[in-house]
Amino acid sequence: MNFLEAKILSDAVVKPGNILKIDNFLNHQIDIGIIRQIAQELCQRFSDAPVSKVLTIESSGIAIAVMVGNLLNVPVVFAKKSETANSTDEKYLSQAYSFTHKKMNNVYVSRPYLLYSDRVLIIDDFLADGQAVHALIDIASQAGAEVLGVGIAVEKGQQQGGRMLREAGYRLESVAIIENMDCQSQTIRFREQL
Amino acid sequence: MNFLEAKILSDAVVKPGNILKIDNFLNHQIDIGIIRQIAQELCQRFSDAPVSKVLTIESSGIAIAVMVGNLLNVPVVFAKKSETANSTDEKYLSQAYSFTHKKMNNVYVSRPYLLYSDRVLIIDDFLADGQAVHALIDIASQAGAEVLGVGIAVEKGQQQGGRMLREAGYRLESVAIIENMDCQSQTIRFREQL
Repeated sequence: MNFLEAKILSDAVVKPGNILKIDNFLNHQIDIGIIRQIAQELCQRFSDAPVSKVLTIESSGIAIAVMVGNLLNVPVVFAKKSETANSTDEKYLSQAYSFTHKKMNNVYVSRPYLLYSDRVLIIDDFLADGQAVHALIDIASQAGAEVLGVGIAVEKGQQQGGRMLREAGYRLESVAIIENMDCQSQTIRFREQL
Repeated sequence: MNFLEAKILSDAVVKPGNILKIDNFLNHQIDIGIIRQIAQELCQRFSDAPVSKVLTIESSGIAIAVMVGNLLNVPVVFAKKSETANSTDEKYLSQAYSFTHKKMNNVYVSRPYLLYSDRVLIIDDFLADGQAVHALIDIASQAGAEVLGVGIAVEKGQQQGGRMLREAGYRLESVAIIENMDCQSQTIRFREQL
């Protein structure tokens, strides 16, 4: 069992509706030691990839993405979900349904911040149905950038996001993959990884 | 002139409506070297403060807050602006008007993540009218936590946020304070700091 699986077993709560609540260390309160280790693990798994930019999506992907960018010493771009009054830049636009917020979000990146020459590592905290990652891949492909891979902290292996990405040929690395979980007994089982 | 003032002079764009556009290195694309230096500078200025938790607000405060938390080795909590389906925790709630998005936001932190015993350093990327920082101070005081100070990357000194915080007795450290700026001539003048 790796450090993140152990942390999930000790701190996560399984809630009805197939929800894994880990906001005490990942997506509301952030345990710095844990996200430091997540970033180190992802950087090690992608150590052969010549990443020029880390791409994530606001908000809870930013923390891990910044720690990865810090280790790789490359810029981090976070896709936004709402227009701001401050930007009149041309944008790459995609859409993602948020199961957390139960609504369709526009997702965009200002064009100057993703280049044809970029070799992108996509980072996010969670992978479930893959809506956010697909929007980020769509945006990267609009820019003509190369997606070297996708690095995730926690993948919910029962949902389709991971399978679809792997079948489409993307290199996907998830530090912890939940095979199944049960809110009655609060049991969580992880997929074996080499 | 410090590193951030120099970066602002070289990369920022002054736009009509008193807007400073720095999304090429701070709040859309993140220059890792710059936020690393911002975090180091803030940690140095607060080096005598026994911080137990960094508090910020989604989204663009997260990057600097995580870098500060990484240096101080303390947890980071980011206040949220919208309810999620995943949390039924009791919350501390406040409100902040966003001039960027031109709307009033609810701002909240789940109660378990701010404690009476916490000594909080509030971190944000921008300080203008101070709406977000005031909401974070309000939330910290609801929790009974002590606010040791407020660390900001870029303060817009012509707006009231900084003055009000200093007059209220808060320890406020801003790495760069813009005294005035002009979109016609693209000139930016900084406040001298000791």
